[in-house]
Amino acid sequence: MIVLYDLAVAADRRPSPFCWRSKFALRHKGLDWQEVPVGFTEKDRIAFAGSTTLPVLRDTSQNDHAVRDSWAIAEYLEASYPQRPLFVGESGRTFARFINIWADFTVHTALFPLVVADIFAHVRPEDRDYFRQSREKRLGAPLEQAQESARQSRLPAFRATLEPARRLLGEQPFLAGPAPAYPDYILAGTMMWVRTVCSIVLLEPGDPILAWQDRMLDLFDGFARRAPAAAA
Amino acid sequence: MIVLYDLAVAADRRPSPFCWRSKFALRHKGLDWQEVPVGFTEKDRIAFAGSTTLPVLRDTSQNDHAVRDSWAIAEYLEASYPQRPLFVGESGRTFARFINIWADFTVHTALFPLVVADIFAHVRPEDRDYFRQSREKRLGAPLEQAQESARQSRLPAFRATLEPARRLLGEQPFLAGPAPAYPDYILAGTMMWVRTVCSIVLLEPGDPILAWQDRMLDLFDGFARRAPAAAA
Repeated sequence: MIVLYDLAVAADRRPSPFCWRSKFALRHKGLDWQEVPVGFTEKDRIAFAGSTTLPVLRDTSQNDHAVRDSWAIAEYLEASYPQRPLFVGESGRTFARFINIWADFTVHTALFPLVVADIFAHVRPEDRDYFRQSREKRLGAPLEQAQESARQSRLPAFRATLEPARRLLGEQPFLAGPAPAYPDYILAGTMMWVRTVCSIVLLEPGDPILAWQDRMLDLFDGFARRAPAAAA
Repeated sequence: MIVLYDLAVAADRRPSPFCWRSKFALRHKGLDWQEVPVGFTEKDRIAFAGSTTLPVLRDTSQNDHAVRDSWAIAEYLEASYPQRPLFVGESGRTFARFINIWADFTVHTALFPLVVADIFAHVRPEDRDYFRQSREKRLGAPLEQAQESARQSRLPAFRATLEPARRLLGEQPFLAGPAPAYPDYILAGTMMWVRTVCSIVLLEPGDPILAWQDRMLDLFDGFARRAPAAAA
Protein backbone atom coordinates (compact mmCIF):
# COMPACT_ATOMS: atom_id res chain seq x y z
CA MET A 1 0.00 0.00 0.00
CA ILE A 2 1.11 3.57 -0.73
CA VAL A 3 0.82 6.20 1.99
CA LEU A 4 1.05 9.88 1.02
CA TYR A 5 1.74 12.50 3.67
CA ASP A 6 -0.08 15.61 2.42
CA LEU A 7 0.03 19.16 3.75
CA ALA A 8 -3.33 20.07 5.31
CA VAL A 9 -4.84 23.38 6.39
CA ALA A 10 -8.29 24.13 7.88
CA ALA A 11 -11.50 22.50 6.57
CA ASP A 12 -9.41 19.68 5.07
CA ARG A 13 -8.03 21.90 2.35
CA ARG A 14 -4.83 20.71 0.71
CA PRO A 15 -2.97 23.68 -0.76
CA SER A 16 0.50 22.23 -1.39
CA PRO A 17 1.36 22.41 -5.12
CA PHE A 18 4.03 19.76 -4.55
CA CYS A 19 1.63 17.30 -2.93
CA TRP A 20 -0.82 17.80 -5.80
CA ARG A 21 1.91 16.83 -8.27
CA SER A 22 2.22 13.50 -6.50
CA LYS A 23 -1.55 12.97 -6.24
CA PHE A 24 -2.01 13.56 -9.97
CA ALA A 25 0.94 11.24 -10.66
CA LEU A 26 -0.57 8.47 -8.51
CA ARG A 27 -3.92 8.84 -10.29
CA HIS A 28 -2.15 8.77 -13.68
CA LYS A 29 -0.55 5.46 -12.71
CA GLY A 30 -3.89 4.11 -11.54
CA LEU A 31 -2.53 3.62 -8.02
CA ASP A 32 -4.55 3.88 -4.82
CA TRP A 33 -3.09 5.51 -1.76
CA GLN A 34 -3.90 6.33 1.83
CA GLU A 35 -3.59 10.00 2.70
CA VAL A 36 -2.14 11.27 5.96
CA PRO A 37 -2.87 14.98 6.49
CA VAL A 38 0.01 16.83 8.15
CA GLY A 39 -0.14 20.40 9.47
CA PHE A 40 2.65 22.95 9.10
CA THR A 41 3.82 22.31 12.68
CA GLU A 42 3.51 18.52 12.64
CA LYS A 43 6.77 17.85 10.87
CA ASP A 44 7.65 15.20 13.45
CA ARG A 45 5.21 12.97 11.56
CA ILE A 46 7.54 12.91 8.54
CA ALA A 47 10.82 12.82 10.44
CA PHE A 48 10.97 9.05 9.77
CA ALA A 49 11.72 9.94 6.13
CA GLY A 50 14.41 12.48 7.04
CA SER A 51 12.16 15.20 5.63
CA THR A 52 10.86 18.54 6.85
CA THR A 53 8.77 19.17 3.74
CA LEU A 54 5.79 17.53 2.11
CA PRO A 55 4.95 15.38 0.24
CA VAL A 56 6.46 12.21 1.63
CA LEU A 57 5.52 8.85 0.15
CA ARG A 58 5.79 5.53 1.93
CA ASP A 59 5.37 2.31 -0.04
CA THR A 60 4.55 -0.63 2.23
CA SER A 61 4.62 -3.01 -0.73
CA GLN A 62 8.29 -2.12 -1.33
CA ASN A 63 9.75 -2.85 2.09
CA ASP A 64 8.25 0.38 3.51
CA HIS A 65 10.44 2.47 1.21
CA ALA A 66 10.13 6.20 1.95
CA VAL A 67 10.60 8.97 -0.62
CA ARG A 68 10.58 12.70 0.02
CA ASP A 69 10.27 15.54 -2.52
CA SER A 70 7.72 15.51 -5.32
CA TRP A 71 10.31 15.14 -8.07
CA ALA A 72 11.92 12.15 -6.37
CA ILE A 73 8.44 10.67 -5.89
CA ALA A 74 7.71 11.05 -9.62
CA GLU A 75 10.97 9.29 -10.45
CA TYR A 76 10.26 6.59 -7.87
CA LEU A 77 6.79 5.93 -9.25
CA GLU A 78 8.12 5.83 -12.82
CA ALA A 79 10.79 3.29 -11.86
CA SER A 80 8.62 1.12 -9.61
CA TYR A 81 5.33 1.28 -11.53
CA PRO A 82 6.32 1.61 -15.20
CA GLN A 83 2.74 1.34 -16.49
CA ARG A 84 1.35 4.58 -18.03
CA PRO A 85 4.56 6.64 -18.19
CA LEU A 86 4.71 10.03 -16.49
CA PHE A 87 7.68 10.89 -18.69
CA VAL A 88 6.80 10.26 -22.34
CA GLY A 89 9.59 9.10 -24.64
CA GLU A 90 13.30 9.77 -24.59
CA SER A 91 13.00 13.52 -23.86
CA GLY A 92 10.10 13.08 -21.47
CA ARG A 93 12.07 13.13 -18.24
CA THR A 94 14.16 16.15 -19.26
CA PHE A 95 11.11 18.07 -20.44
CA ALA A 96 9.32 17.35 -17.14
CA ARG A 97 12.44 18.34 -15.20
CA PHE A 98 12.67 21.67 -17.01
CA ILE A 99 8.99 22.36 -16.34
CA ASN A 100 9.51 21.40 -12.69
CA ILE A 101 12.34 23.90 -12.20
CA TRP A 102 10.54 26.56 -14.24
CA ALA A 103 7.38 26.19 -12.13
CA ASP A 104 9.32 26.27 -8.86
CA PHE A 105 11.55 29.23 -9.64
CA THR A 106 9.92 31.31 -12.34
CA VAL A 107 6.20 30.81 -11.74
CA HIS A 108 6.03 30.23 -7.97
CA THR A 109 8.40 33.08 -7.15
CA ALA A 110 6.02 35.44 -8.94
CA LEU A 111 2.88 33.77 -7.61
CA PHE A 112 3.69 33.32 -3.93
CA PRO A 113 3.25 36.98 -2.85
CA LEU A 114 -0.07 37.11 -4.74
CA VAL A 115 -1.68 34.42 -2.60
CA VAL A 116 0.26 34.36 0.66
CA ALA A 117 -2.37 36.09 2.81
CA ASP A 118 -5.09 33.89 1.32
CA ILE A 119 -3.08 30.82 2.29
CA PHE A 120 -2.65 32.23 5.77
CA ALA A 121 -6.40 32.75 6.13
CA HIS A 122 -6.85 28.99 5.76
CA VAL A 123 -3.95 27.84 7.92
CA ARG A 124 -5.06 26.03 11.11
CA PRO A 125 -4.99 28.23 14.22
CA GLU A 126 -2.19 26.20 15.81
CA ASP A 127 0.02 26.68 12.70
CA ARG A 128 -0.52 30.42 12.24
CA ASP A 129 2.43 31.73 14.21
CA TYR A 130 4.79 29.41 12.41
CA PHE A 131 3.40 30.32 9.00
CA ARG A 132 3.35 34.08 9.58
CA GLN A 133 6.85 34.23 11.00
CA SER A 134 8.51 32.00 8.42
CA ARG A 135 6.76 33.64 5.46
CA GLU A 136 7.17 37.22 6.62
CA LYS A 137 10.86 36.57 7.00
CA ARG A 138 10.97 35.38 3.38
CA LEU A 139 8.87 38.29 2.08
CA GLY A 140 10.33 41.03 4.28
CA ALA A 141 6.85 42.42 4.91
CA PRO A 142 3.58 41.55 6.70
CA LEU A 143 1.66 38.93 4.72
CA GLU A 144 -1.38 41.10 4.09
CA GLN A 145 0.72 44.04 2.96
CA ALA A 146 2.87 41.86 0.70
CA GLN A 147 -0.21 40.38 -0.96
CA GLU A 148 -1.98 43.71 -1.40
CA SER A 149 1.12 45.29 -2.89
CA ALA A 150 1.73 42.32 -5.20
CA ARG A 151 -1.86 42.33 -6.47
CA GLN A 152 -1.62 46.00 -7.28
CA SER A 153 1.67 45.89 -9.13
CA ARG A 154 2.82 42.37 -9.92
CA LEU A 155 -0.11 40.60 -11.53
CA PRO A 156 1.10 41.34 -15.10
CA ALA A 157 4.58 40.02 -14.25
CA PHE A 158 3.06 36.82 -12.85
CA ARG A 159 0.90 36.35 -15.94
CA ALA A 160 3.99 36.91 -18.11
CA THR A 161 5.85 34.06 -16.41
CA LEU A 162 3.15 31.71 -17.74
CA GLU A 163 3.60 32.81 -21.36
CA PRO A 164 5.47 29.63 -22.45
CA ALA A 165 2.65 27.44 -21.08
CA ARG A 166 0.00 29.79 -22.46
CA ARG A 167 1.38 29.70 -25.99
CA LEU A 168 2.03 25.98 -25.97
CA LEU A 169 -1.53 25.34 -24.72
CA GLY A 170 -2.78 27.49 -27.58
CA GLU A 171 -1.22 24.90 -29.89
CA GLN A 172 -2.00 21.59 -28.17
CA PRO A 173 -4.44 20.40 -25.46
CA PHE A 174 -1.87 19.48 -22.80
CA LEU A 175 1.68 20.57 -22.02
CA ALA A 176 2.85 17.01 -22.65
CA GLY A 177 1.02 16.82 -26.00
CA PRO A 178 -2.30 15.22 -26.95
CA ALA A 179 -2.59 13.57 -23.51
CA PRO A 180 -1.59 14.78 -20.04
CA ALA A 181 1.60 13.62 -18.35
CA TYR A 182 3.89 14.82 -15.59
CA PRO A 183 4.56 18.31 -17.07
CA ASP A 184 0.81 18.93 -16.79
CA TYR A 185 0.66 17.62 -13.23
CA ILE A 186 3.41 20.01 -12.20
CA LEU A 187 1.48 23.06 -13.38
CA ALA A 188 -1.78 21.53 -12.14
CA GLY A 189 -0.22 21.58 -8.68
CA THR A 190 0.31 25.32 -9.09
CA MET A 191 -3.32 25.71 -10.17
CA MET A 192 -4.54 23.77 -7.10
CA TRP A 193 -2.37 25.91 -4.83
CA VAL A 194 -4.40 28.91 -5.98
CA ARG A 195 -7.76 27.15 -6.25
CA THR A 196 -7.78 25.75 -2.72
CA VAL A 197 -7.24 29.09 -0.96
CA CYS A 198 -7.87 31.98 -3.34
CA SER A 199 -11.30 33.13 -4.47
CA ILE A 200 -10.19 35.55 -7.17
CA VAL A 201 -9.11 34.47 -10.65
CA LEU A 202 -5.55 35.57 -11.37
CA LEU A 203 -5.68 34.98 -15.14
CA GLU A 204 -7.50 37.02 -17.75
CA PRO A 205 -10.70 35.75 -19.39
CA GLY A 206 -9.95 33.74 -22.52
CA ASP A 207 -6.50 32.71 -21.34
CA PRO A 208 -5.81 29.26 -22.86
CA ILE A 209 -4.50 28.21 -19.44
CA LEU A 210 -8.03 28.49 -18.02
CA ALA A 211 -9.39 26.05 -20.62
CA TRP A 212 -6.50 23.69 -19.83
CA GLN A 213 -7.31 24.02 -16.10
CA ASP A 214 -10.84 22.84 -16.83
CA ARG A 215 -9.44 19.83 -18.67
CA MET A 216 -7.14 19.07 -15.73
CA LEU A 217 -10.00 19.33 -13.24
CA ASP A 218 -11.99 16.84 -15.35
CA LEU A 219 -9.26 14.19 -15.24
CA PHE A 220 -9.64 11.00 -13.20
CA ASP A 221 -13.37 11.46 -12.61
CA GLY A 222 -12.87 15.04 -11.46
CA PHE A 223 -10.97 14.15 -8.29
CA ALA A 224 -9.20 17.53 -8.17
CA ARG A 225 -12.42 19.44 -8.95
CA ARG A 226 -14.12 17.80 -5.95
CA ALA A 227 -11.33 18.78 -3.54
CA PRO A 228 -12.35 21.53 -1.10
CA ALA A 229 -11.67 24.87 -2.77
CA ALA A 230 -11.97 28.55 -1.88
CA ALA A 231 -14.36 29.40 -4.71
CA ALA A 232 -17.75 27.85 -3.97
CA MET B 1 21.47 23.22 -52.19
CA ILE B 2 20.30 25.07 -49.08
CA VAL B 3 20.51 28.86 -48.98
CA LEU B 4 20.19 30.63 -45.63
CA TYR B 5 19.43 34.34 -45.49
CA ASP B 6 21.18 35.56 -42.34
CA LEU B 7 20.98 38.95 -40.63
CA ALA B 8 24.30 40.79 -40.98
CA VAL B 9 25.73 43.86 -39.27
CA ALA B 10 29.13 45.54 -39.66
CA ALA B 11 32.38 43.55 -39.96
CA ASP B 12 30.38 40.48 -41.06
CA ARG B 13 29.00 39.93 -37.58
CA ARG B 14 25.84 37.86 -37.38
CA PRO B 15 23.92 38.74 -34.22
CA SER B 16 20.48 37.22 -34.90
CA PRO B 17 19.66 34.57 -32.26
CA PHE B 18 17.04 33.15 -34.60
CA CYS B 19 19.48 32.74 -37.50
CA TRP B 20 21.94 31.00 -35.17
CA ARG B 21 19.26 28.48 -34.22
CA SER B 22 19.02 27.53 -37.90
CA LYS B 23 22.79 27.43 -38.41
CA PHE B 24 23.28 25.10 -35.45
CA ALA B 25 20.39 22.95 -36.73
CA LEU B 26 21.95 22.70 -40.20
CA ARG B 27 25.30 21.69 -38.68
CA HIS B 28 23.57 19.14 -36.47
CA LYS B 29 22.03 17.57 -39.57
CA GLY B 30 25.40 17.59 -41.32
CA LEU B 31 24.00 19.82 -44.08
CA ASP B 32 25.98 22.40 -46.03
CA TRP B 33 24.48 25.72 -46.91
CA GLN B 34 25.21 28.93 -48.74
CA GLU B 35 24.81 32.04 -46.63
CA VAL B 36 23.30 35.28 -47.91
CA PRO B 37 23.94 38.19 -45.52
CA VAL B 38 21.00 40.59 -45.31
CA GLY B 39 21.05 44.01 -43.59
CA PHE B 40 18.22 45.38 -41.49
CA THR B 41 17.01 47.56 -44.40
CA GLU B 42 17.41 44.98 -47.15
CA LYS B 43 14.19 43.15 -46.48
CA ASP B 44 13.35 43.24 -50.19
CA ARG B 45 15.84 40.37 -50.53
CA ILE B 46 13.55 38.06 -48.55
CA ALA B 47 10.26 39.33 -49.93
CA PHE B 48 10.20 36.28 -52.25
CA ALA B 49 9.48 34.19 -49.14
CA GLY B 50 6.72 36.51 -47.92
CA SER B 51 8.92 37.38 -44.95
CA THR B 52 10.12 40.57 -43.29
CA THR B 53 12.22 38.73 -40.70
CA LEU B 54 15.28 36.49 -40.78
CA PRO B 55 16.17 33.69 -41.09
CA VAL B 56 14.71 32.53 -44.38
CA LEU B 57 15.76 29.20 -45.83
CA ARG B 58 15.53 28.26 -49.49
CA ASP B 59 16.06 24.64 -50.53
CA THR B 60 16.92 24.33 -54.21
CA SER B 61 16.92 20.54 -53.95
CA GLN B 62 13.25 20.62 -52.92
CA ASN B 63 11.78 22.61 -55.80
CA ASP B 64 13.19 25.86 -54.38
CA HIS B 65 10.98 25.53 -51.30
CA ALA B 66 11.20 28.63 -49.07
CA VAL B 67 10.68 28.59 -45.30
CA ARG B 68 10.61 31.58 -42.98
CA ASP B 69 10.88 31.64 -39.16
CA SER B 70 13.48 29.62 -37.26
CA TRP B 71 10.91 27.27 -35.69
CA ALA B 72 9.35 26.48 -39.07
CA ILE B 73 12.86 25.91 -40.44
CA ALA B 74 13.61 23.43 -37.65
CA GLU B 75 10.40 21.55 -38.39
CA TYR B 76 11.15 21.65 -42.13
CA LEU B 77 14.65 20.26 -41.64
CA GLU B 78 13.36 17.53 -39.33
CA ALA B 79 10.72 16.47 -41.88
CA SER B 80 12.94 16.70 -44.98
CA TYR B 81 16.23 15.47 -43.51
CA PRO B 82 15.29 12.98 -40.79
CA GLN B 83 18.89 11.92 -40.07
CA ARG B 84 20.23 13.00 -36.65
CA PRO B 85 16.97 14.21 -35.06
CA LEU B 86 16.72 17.76 -33.73
CA PHE B 87 13.74 16.64 -31.62
CA VAL B 88 14.68 13.55 -29.62
CA GLY B 89 11.93 11.01 -28.94
CA GLU B 90 8.20 11.42 -28.50
CA SER B 91 8.40 14.50 -26.24
CA GLY B 92 11.29 16.03 -28.16
CA ARG B 93 9.28 18.39 -30.33
CA THR B 94 7.14 19.64 -27.44
CA PHE B 95 10.17 20.14 -25.19
CA ALA B 96 11.92 22.13 -27.92
CA ARG B 97 8.76 24.15 -28.55
CA PHE B 98 8.48 25.07 -24.87
CA ILE B 99 12.14 26.11 -24.78
CA ASN B 100 11.61 28.12 -27.97
CA ILE B 101 8.72 30.12 -26.49
CA TRP B 102 10.46 30.46 -23.12
CA ALA B 103 13.61 31.83 -24.78
CA ASP B 104 11.64 34.26 -26.96
CA PHE B 105 9.35 35.63 -24.27
CA THR B 106 10.96 35.08 -20.90
CA VAL B 107 14.68 35.29 -21.64
CA HIS B 108 14.83 37.67 -24.61
CA THR B 109 12.39 40.14 -23.10
CA ALA B 110 14.72 40.48 -20.11
CA LEU B 111 17.90 40.40 -22.23
CA PHE B 112 17.07 42.79 -25.05
CA PRO B 113 17.40 46.06 -23.07
CA LEU B 114 20.74 44.84 -21.68
CA VAL B 115 22.38 44.62 -25.09
CA VAL B 116 20.42 46.94 -27.37
CA ALA B 117 22.98 49.78 -27.50
CA ASP B 118 25.77 47.24 -28.09
CA ILE B 119 23.83 45.82 -31.02
CA PHE B 120 23.33 49.35 -32.35
CA ALA B 121 27.06 50.04 -32.15
CA HIS B 122 27.60 47.25 -34.67
CA VAL B 123 24.71 47.99 -37.01
CA ARG B 124 25.81 49.10 -40.48
CA PRO B 125 25.67 52.89 -40.98
CA GLU B 126 22.89 52.62 -43.57
CA ASP B 127 20.72 50.61 -41.14
CA ARG B 128 21.16 52.81 -38.06
CA ASP B 129 18.18 55.09 -38.48
CA TYR B 130 15.88 52.14 -38.99
CA PHE B 131 17.29 50.27 -36.00
CA ARG B 132 17.23 53.25 -33.63
CA GLN B 133 13.72 54.32 -34.53
CA SER B 134 12.14 50.86 -34.44
CA ARG B 135 13.87 49.81 -31.19
CA GLU B 136 13.39 53.09 -29.34
CA LYS B 137 9.70 52.84 -30.15
CA ARG B 138 9.66 49.38 -28.56
CA LEU B 139 11.70 50.46 -25.51
CA GLY B 140 10.14 53.88 -25.01
CA ALA B 141 13.58 55.39 -24.38
CA PRO B 142 16.85 56.19 -26.18
CA LEU B 143 18.87 52.99 -26.75
CA GLU B 144 21.85 54.08 -24.69
CA GLN B 145 19.69 55.19 -21.79
CA ALA B 146 17.62 52.00 -21.88
CA GLN B 147 20.75 49.84 -21.83
CA GLU B 148 22.44 51.82 -19.06
CA SER B 149 19.34 51.72 -16.91
CA ALA B 150 18.81 47.99 -17.54
CA ARG B 151 22.41 47.16 -16.65
CA GLN B 152 22.09 49.02 -13.40
CA SER B 153 18.84 47.50 -12.25
CA ARG B 154 17.77 44.51 -14.33
CA LEU B 155 20.76 42.19 -14.53
CA PRO B 156 19.56 40.05 -11.56
CA ALA B 157 16.11 39.70 -13.14
CA PHE B 158 17.68 38.58 -16.43
CA ARG B 159 19.87 36.04 -14.67
CA ALA B 160 16.81 34.76 -12.81
CA THR B 161 15.00 34.05 -16.10
CA LEU B 162 17.76 31.54 -16.88
CA GLU B 163 17.33 29.61 -13.63
CA PRO B 164 15.56 26.61 -15.24
CA ALA B 165 18.40 26.20 -17.75
CA ARG B 166 21.02 26.85 -15.07
CA ARG B 167 19.67 24.14 -12.75
CA LEU B 168 19.11 21.63 -15.53
CA LEU B 169 22.67 22.20 -16.80
CA GLY B 170 23.90 21.58 -13.27
CA GLU B 171 22.41 18.09 -13.62
CA GLN B 172 23.25 17.14 -17.22
CA PRO B 173 25.69 18.38 -19.90
CA PHE B 174 23.13 19.66 -22.41
CA LEU B 175 19.54 20.89 -22.18
CA ALA B 176 18.47 17.99 -24.39
CA GLY B 177 20.32 15.44 -22.23
CA PRO B 178 23.69 13.72 -22.74
CA ALA B 179 23.99 15.14 -26.27
CA PRO B 180 22.94 18.49 -27.73
CA ALA B 181 19.76 18.88 -29.78
CA TYR B 182 17.40 21.68 -30.78
CA PRO B 183 16.68 22.93 -27.21
CA ASP B 184 20.41 23.66 -26.91
CA TYR B 185 20.54 25.38 -30.29
CA ILE B 186 17.73 27.70 -29.25
CA LEU B 187 19.61 28.94 -26.19
CA ALA B 188 22.89 28.88 -28.11
CA GLY B 189 21.29 31.43 -30.44
CA THR B 190 20.69 33.65 -27.42
CA MET B 191 24.31 33.19 -26.36
CA MET B 192 25.54 34.18 -29.84
CA TRP B 193 23.29 37.24 -29.83
CA VAL B 194 25.26 38.48 -26.82
CA ARG B 195 28.67 37.18 -27.90
CA THR B 196 28.69 38.83 -31.33
CA VAL B 197 28.06 42.36 -30.07
CA CYS B 198 28.63 42.59 -26.32
CA SER B 199 32.06 42.60 -24.68
CA ILE B 200 30.89 42.23 -21.07
CA VAL B 201 29.90 38.90 -19.53
CA LEU B 202 26.31 39.04 -18.27
CA LEU B 203 26.50 35.89 -16.15
CA GLU B 204 28.30 35.38 -12.85
CA PRO B 205 31.56 33.38 -12.64
CA GLY B 206 30.88 29.69 -12.04
CA ASP B 207 27.42 29.79 -13.61
CA PRO B 208 26.85 26.32 -15.13
CA ILE B 209 25.52 28.10 -18.22
CA LEU B 210 29.03 29.41 -18.95
CA ALA B 211 30.47 25.88 -18.97
CA TRP B 212 27.64 24.80 -21.27
CA GLN B 213 28.40 27.79 -23.55
CA ASP B 214 31.96 26.53 -23.88
CA ARG B 215 30.64 23.11 -24.87
CA MET B 216 28.35 24.70 -27.44
CA LEU B 217 31.18 26.79 -28.89
CA ASP B 218 33.24 23.60 -29.29
CA LEU B 219 30.58 21.83 -31.35
CA PHE B 220 31.02 21.15 -35.06
CA ASP B 221 34.73 22.00 -35.09
CA GLY B 222 34.12 25.25 -33.22
CA PHE B 223 32.22 26.94 -36.05
CA ALA B 224 30.37 29.27 -33.66
CA ARG B 225 33.54 30.08 -31.70
CA ARG B 226 35.23 31.20 -34.91
CA ALA B 227 32.41 33.58 -35.86
CA PRO B 228 33.34 37.26 -35.47
CA ALA B 229 32.59 38.28 -31.89
CA ALA B 230 32.80 41.41 -29.78
CA ALA B 231 35.18 39.96 -27.20
CA ALA B 232 38.59 39.54 -28.80
